[in-house]
Amino acid sequence: MSGSSFGTVFKCTTWGESHGIAIGCTVEGMPPRIPLTEADIQPFLDRRKPGQSRYTTQRREPDQVRILSGVYEGQTTGTPIQLMIENQDQRSKDYSAIAQSYRPGHADFTYDAKYGIRDPRGGGRASARETASRVAAGALAHKILTQEFPNFRIVAGLVAMGTKKLDDHRDWDAVAQNPLFCPNATVIDEWADYLDTIRKSGSSIGALIEVRAQGIPAGLGAPTFDRLDADLAKAMMSINAVKAVEIGAGLDVVAMTGEDNADEITGIDNGIPRYRANNAGGILGGISNGNDIVVRFAIKPTSSILNSLETIDTAGNPTTISTKGRHDPCVGIRAVPVGEAMMALVLVDHLMRHRAQCDKKIS
Amino acid sequence: MSGSSFGTVFKCTTWGESHGIAIGCTVEGMPPRIPLTEADIQPFLDRRKPGQSRYTTQRREPDQVRILSGVYEGQTTGTPIQLMIENQDQRSKDYSAIAQSYRPGHADFTYDAKYGIRDPRGGGRASARETASRVAAGALAHKILTQEFPNFRIVAGLVAMGTKKLDDHRDWDAVAQNPLFCPNATVIDEWADYLDTIRKSGSSIGALIEVRAQGIPAGLGAPTFDRLDADLAKAMMSINAVKAVEIGAGLDVVAMTGEDNADEITGIDNGIPRYRANNAGGILGGISNGNDIVVRFAIKPTSSILNSLETIDTAGNPTTISTKGRHDPCVGIRAVPVGEAMMALVLVDHLMRHRAQCDKKIS
Amino acid sequence: MSGSSFGTVFKCTTWGESHGIAIGCTVEGMPPRIPLTEADIQPFLDRRKPGQSRYTTQRREPDQVRILSGVYEGQTTGTPIQLMIENQDQRSKDYSAIAQSYRPGHADFTYDAKYGIRDPRGGGRASARETASRVAAGALAHKILTQEFPNFRIVAGLVAMGTKKLDDHRDWDAVAQNPLFCPNATVIDEWADYLDTIRKSGSSIGALIEVRAQGIPAGLGAPTFDRLDADLAKAMMSINAVKAVEIGAGLDVVAMTGEDNADEITGIDNGIPRYRANNAGGILGGISNGNDIVVRFAIKPTSSILNSLETIDTAGNPTTISTKGRHDPCVGIRAVPVGEAMMALVLVDHLMRHRAQCDKKIS
Amino acid sequence: MSGSSFGTVFKCTTWGESHGIAIGCTVEGMPPRIPLTEADIQPFLDRRKPGQSRYTTQRREPDQVRILSGVYEGQTTGTPIQLMIENQDQRSKDYSAIAQSYRPGHADFTYDAKYGIRDPRGGGRASARETASRVAAGALAHKILTQEFPNFRIVAGLVAMGTKKLDDHRDWDAVAQNPLFCPNATVIDEWADYLDTIRKSGSSIGALIEVRAQGIPAGLGAPTFDRLDADLAKAMMSINAVKAVEIGAGLDVVAMTGEDNADEITGIDNGIPRYRANNAGGILGGISNGNDIVVRFAIKPTSSILNSLETIDTAGNPTTISTKGRHDPCVGIRAVPVGEAMMALVLVDHLMRHRAQCDKKIS
Repeated sequence: MSGSSFGTVFKCTTWGESHGIAIGCTVEGMPPRIPLTEADIQPFLDRRKPGQSRYTTQRREPDQVRILSGVYEGQTTGTPIQLMIENQDQRSKDYSAIAQSYRPGHADFTYDAKYGIRDPRGGGRASARETASRVAAGALAHKILTQEFPNFRIVAGLVAMGTKKLDDHRDWDAVAQNPLFCPNATVIDEWADYLDTIRKSGSSIGALIEVRAQGIPAGLGAPTFDRLDADLAKAMMSINAVKAVEIGAGLDVVAMTGEDNADEITGIDNGIPRYRANNAGGILGGISNGNDIVVRFAIKPTSSILNSLETIDTAGNPTTISTKGRHDPCVGIRAVPVGEAMMALVLVDHLMRHRAQCDKKIS
Repeated sequence: MSGSSFGTVFKCTTWGESHGIAIGCTVEGMPPRIPLTEADIQPFLDRRKPGQSRYTTQRREPDQVRILSGVYEGQTTGTPIQLMIENQDQRSKDYSAIAQSYRPGHADFTYDAKYGIRDPRGGGRASARETASRVAAGALAHKILTQEFPNFRIVAGLVAMGTKKLDDHRDWDAVAQNPLFCPNATVIDEWADYLDTIRKSGSSIGALIEVRAQGIPAGLGAPTFDRLDADLAKAMMSINAVKAVEIGAGLDVVAMTGEDNADEITGIDNGIPRYRANNAGGILGGISNGNDIVVRFAIKPTSSILNSLETIDTAGNPTTISTKGRHDPCVGIRAVPVGEAMMALVLVDHLMRHRAQCDKKIS
Repeated sequence: MSGSSFGTVFKCTTWGESHGIAIGCTVEGMPPRIPLTEADIQPFLDRRKPGQSRYTTQRREPDQVRILSGVYEGQTTGTPIQLMIENQDQRSKDYSAIAQSYRPGHADFTYDAKYGIRDPRGGGRASARETASRVAAGALAHKILTQEFPNFRIVAGLVAMGTKKLDDHRDWDAVAQNPLFCPNATVIDEWADYLDTIRKSGSSIGALIEVRAQGIPAGLGAPTFDRLDADLAKAMMSINAVKAVEIGAGLDVVAMTGEDNADEITGIDNGIPRYRANNAGGILGGISNGNDIVVRFAIKPTSSILNSLETIDTAGNPTTISTKGRHDPCVGIRAVPVGEAMMALVLVDHLMRHRAQCDKKIS
Repeated sequence: MSGSSFGTVFKCTTWGESHGIAIGCTVEGMPPRIPLTEADIQPFLDRRKPGQSRYTTQRREPDQVRILSGVYEGQTTGTPIQLMIENQDQRSKDYSAIAQSYRPGHADFTYDAKYGIRDPRGGGRASARETASRVAAGALAHKILTQEFPNFRIVAGLVAMGTKKLDDHRDWDAVAQNPLFCPNATVIDEWADYLDTIRKSGSSIGALIEVRAQGIPAGLGAPTFDRLDADLAKAMMSINAVKAVEIGAGLDVVAMTGEDNADEITGIDNGIPRYRANNAGGILGGISNGNDIVVRFAIKPTSSILNSLETIDTAGNPTTISTKGRHDPCVGIRAVPVGEAMMALVLVDHLMRHRAQCDKKIS
């Protein structure tokens, strides 16, 4: 009810503040007898962690995860798994500027409006640091899906940044090879230069992330409210700074005719219809149709910029604010592994929900 | 868990199939002592009901709602409210074409993949007829919000259709005056001609709907997963045929700089910051900031068109399918009142959630 | 959140007031492709319905159930099932006595304290009539369990009434043969005479109901909070007028030693341990152990008696109240099918929950 | 869904195994701006912790709680509170006996039946050690209730043990003065001797615990399923080893007549009816009536006894098992603070639920 949990059968509840003692995640509903150690989770966290290139914030956090419960002799027991990441970078900083003023584009004012109190240290609970907990939980979800579906794979990358945009071509293997997590190696030099200019000017820029799940059979999801696409929309919109979510053809459907959009079926392969296009993004009526599940989300440029911005202090008086030192010129980059995690969390929950009601093997 | 419920404290569960005996909605969590009769709900349903102009399907349904429980002597009692709409237009039709083939772009195949059975009559549960139940529940939510917040108002309209798109100007009073639910009277003739052409060609077209909530105070929502924007994204994406959801500046944030997007604060009025822009769409950190809450969603063109489309039958053999007779050339039009209902449902649930935890009057 | 729903995966939400238009139940999570017609449900309702003997209230209600949704051509589709029972016996009665005074032992005062309003007609929502909806939902749960577990059977009966109490012997086949639903034919004459005396004196008496589930495999349930026994305790305590719930040896464990209570295991049959006793009532650590699941609950005598009782009116002034005409001398009798229904609802939900997380066939 | 959470608005999720790294509790829904430090929680844990008298197990655990999140400068922020208790007493022990055999009366077999794996170290998740987490969460609930209701107080104690039973007299101040947590000082010597005899014989004994909440206004609870008494029944039955729960007159209602049980109302004081008796235990129709809320629960004797018991090993072969060394001769004693915690958790959740729906001040 506090809104810190995601999922119904496979549920993760994140906790912790950016500059508190630790952050973490309580994972409920993990199936039993799945081999699990910290080494299964750490690589996912390492991809998200700050300070890996000049395009992400220089905060130094090892983001070392510890499994505190739910695993016995290297296997899950079916009981809650507590994942904890201790915060290292808690150096005593002067937060008085943030504590006394409301940063535009941040949650400072709204937390105060709701709770009458907020933890200003590094953004407290509203910090993107919270997403590390999601990535840890996503690693568990990923493990289950990999075990369940032989061809399962989640791929994701930056497909637009500022005024730059990829065409439809995707080279998912390229993502791991460049610091922008971009699925097209040929644009990296140009995009990196562009981002350097933004960074040096003290500004920031938005981004569009695409996440695809491959190898998911038809039949996952639900009609009515908890549609697979509706749950994905919530999942992605719940990531810090996201302002739009698209499924399949997304916003482009507005200008399409029925014929353009129809996704005609030209045959069937191993029980999965062969669609002429995948405008539906792998989901029809809220249920997966066996094609790639395709989601994109837009991340706004961080409001933490070097240039001074008008705002008010907590007493309501006009003032200005600017961010000193390190910042993320494009927060969208580090959102790539977060989007993957949210995709995995949605899929694993719907897999378990499907089993619960239908007891019908899908594959 | 079957995914037919929406909300946590104020929860509505819809039930019923397009051509079954009835459809309806079980509403839990209604506050007590609120005056309520069918006359409070019917006008909302009347706006959504089919057959009101040549731009919507000609199916004839009075959509007359009955309150079966939860009201005593004209006031709510706090117990569940059962709303029922009997289906009138159940004329014995030949559904064998739909029953034996999978309509592209529809849920026919995915329901079969998931459940091994589907009700093919008019789309069964997957029919947009289900949204009538949402509109009924939304009327109740609307009533609570109106009572709670003196300046509360939800406005909504069609802001793009096919290749036509409104500029930023909105005249919300115009919506009720034209059959396209468009908030700009000056474009109606042109847009209506355009849609007539689509309709006569047997095709269909997509649309973009904007929904705004005005008069909502700062403080509604939650951090982390159940953010106000995340819940709105789920709410809107759960409407049939929706493929994208935007909050505030939406997809445009990709190309914005931090300065463009910042929503600087220039002062404060009655406790609500005065923002230079409202790129945030009234929500920061998942919590309302007192500005208009702005959501847009894209609806795909219905795949039910007169032109023949390639598909497979339930045995996997190639075949073709086309829709005979009446259809909605732009289903987006009738989605306007549905979007309003979903907005009201999200807001009222978060209002009650806020009271539950914070017990802090917001207004 | 309004507290009208039971279950997590298999969920039923009851609605309706005793003398309103109808009562009913929204059932979510029903597995697809299960044959279902009203004839599967009606016999369960017929056992609970009033007016069947002189030991139950003489109100005449056919309690005819209608399936409004979720079934197509005689099979469930996996979508919500709406069950409706129209109220017949709504004759215009004078409720002013109840409306103006608080009946002791009834919910009249507490509803007013909570909601500031109540429906006084026949007790409104607080009437035991609500349990008819549970029995209807229980019939669906029963059907699933019967299909899943070949030796599954729920038996239940009255094992104590006032000062009368059965010894440990049970003859479950006798229950259907006597109007007291008592699993021992030899005591019926004596118990019936005893109850007649109570009835004629205008008084009422308490009862103890035992419910057993047979043929449930080991492995259903959950550790920690949602234990099978904890959920059964809630299920039974949620029935009107229940004041105590026992599992297995129940209250007698207080006086037992560790040796007495130990349930030693003397061997194993088809994977199920052979216990020397079943003090545990078939549940250890919140999870079924393959033995009979044994629950008992105590039902208080109805406070609706002919004798005058002291109370206050809604203005707080002293007054007296008594029930005119028909009443149930032992409401516990009609609680037998309700207890069976709640047992089935708990079991089917835990069956689905088990599948969801563990995907491990149990049988 | 894994069953490790309790509550809806105020929710606690416990995690951790008896001999793992740590145990703890994720608390969601805590109201903001409530002063909170570890010192508010520790006294509650100290009452439950082992090794305080010869009547409880001699395991040495400091049970030192740490608040990892959700508190800023000594006040709650409204975000999740993570409470962690590191396990000290993890000395490398030989668990092979437990690992290879099923202890009768324990969850060993059922965990294996459900999950196909179990953590045998000290009972793993099934250990009563898990209740320490509940007590920690209960301390937070207690704090909220104390702040909300001026006359609020929870009292609890051992009211029966083996063949010993208190009469109706209660001296709640005595509880803190004796190692049996018994609300009657005059019986202590006799009961202590009795328990010493049990302990020295290597056996164990059951107990009955009474928990009362005083100062709770009328209006908390809900009709239908989530009744206050139903939630209390679940809460108490979810405590390890509990086999029966009674509300008010409890099991005694079976033998009562309507007149005996009626709880006549003799007047009204400050809006709260004055009942002649409190057979209802402060709850009518699932909603509090302003009187003391009275719950009792029966705890079985621990099956961990020195005497040898028949059982089977994990391969199904007959064997015997006995507990070596320390054990609790009456686990019911340490269940007293756990019962208090569960009472507080139920009440605070219903307080928040009431606010959410009714927004009606009760006091």
